[in-house]
Amino acid sequence: MAETHGNGGPTDNRRKRASGSFDVASSEPGSIPNPPCGACKFLRRKCVNGCIFAPYFGSDQGAARFAAVHKVFGASNVSKLLMHIPVSRRQHAVVTISYEAQARLSDPVYGCVSTVLALQQQVLEVVGRGQAGLGNGSN
Amino acid sequence: MAETHGNGGPTDNRRKRASGSFDVASSEPGSIPNPPCGACKFLRRKCVNGCIFAPYFGSDQGAARFAAVHKVFGASNVSKLLMHIPVSRRQHAVVTISYEAQARLSDPVYGCVSTVLALQQQVLEVVGRGQAGLGNGSN
Repeated sequence: MAETHGNGGPTDNRRKRASGSFDVASSEPGSIPNPPCGACKFLRRKCVNGCIFAPYFGSDQGAARFAAVHKVFGASNVSKLLMHIPVSRRQHAVVTISYEAQARLSDPVYGCVSTVLALQQQVLEVVGRGQAGLGNGSN
Repeated sequence: MAETHGNGGPTDNRRKRASGSFDVASSEPGSIPNPPCGACKFLRRKCVNGCIFAPYFGSDQGAARFAAVHKVFGASNVSKLLMHIPVSRRQHAVVTISYEAQARLSDPVYGCVSTVLALQQQVLEVVGRGQAGLGNGSN
């Protein structure tokens, strides 16, 4: 599951930065600066207050996960998609998008459709075995 | 399945156009100009010789199908993906990418992962029914 991230609260000085860099010089004295989210870290951009990726791509492992999403779907497309989904459902969307992206990188031709096809085959086989069993039982 | 398209043969005057527009004025006299592929029609760009989308997105219904692919994955990402797949397997890749794109537009939160989850559930239910049947048979 996706890591959670700072919510832009009073101690979230990352959100207050005015410069485009990730240096800590612009943080308030004595405060602990938050790192950019994994998506902004990967994109090497400023992680602004309200960053749509921040709650779902943590600073630690989020960048690697976002790399797959970015390569397959593109940051802009995923951002637009998330903006059209209620906040309460975005976590699920990010999980399924990440799953699809990883599957497409692992299998560029079929992506996660290979799983759909394998499961359809499995259903047919299990149903077939069941029917064969019923047929044997009635003989 | 995807429509096929002109292969850039001797009569494929679309490939010979030098201008960026789709007008027929630049076609050779007496020739029947081919329309741009569905992807280039959607992107309103010149469909050049060797267009990577042309064999898979026909001029008629290809534009509508490409619109979904473009909205979800982006033309650039799909182009890069196809370029890394052997030509003989690209048709399958386009079919699965189109399927994923349509599924994501229909269900922005789960996309085709909803099908994976439904099939997994179906396998569990069918296997469960089979085991219950075996259990009843042995009693």
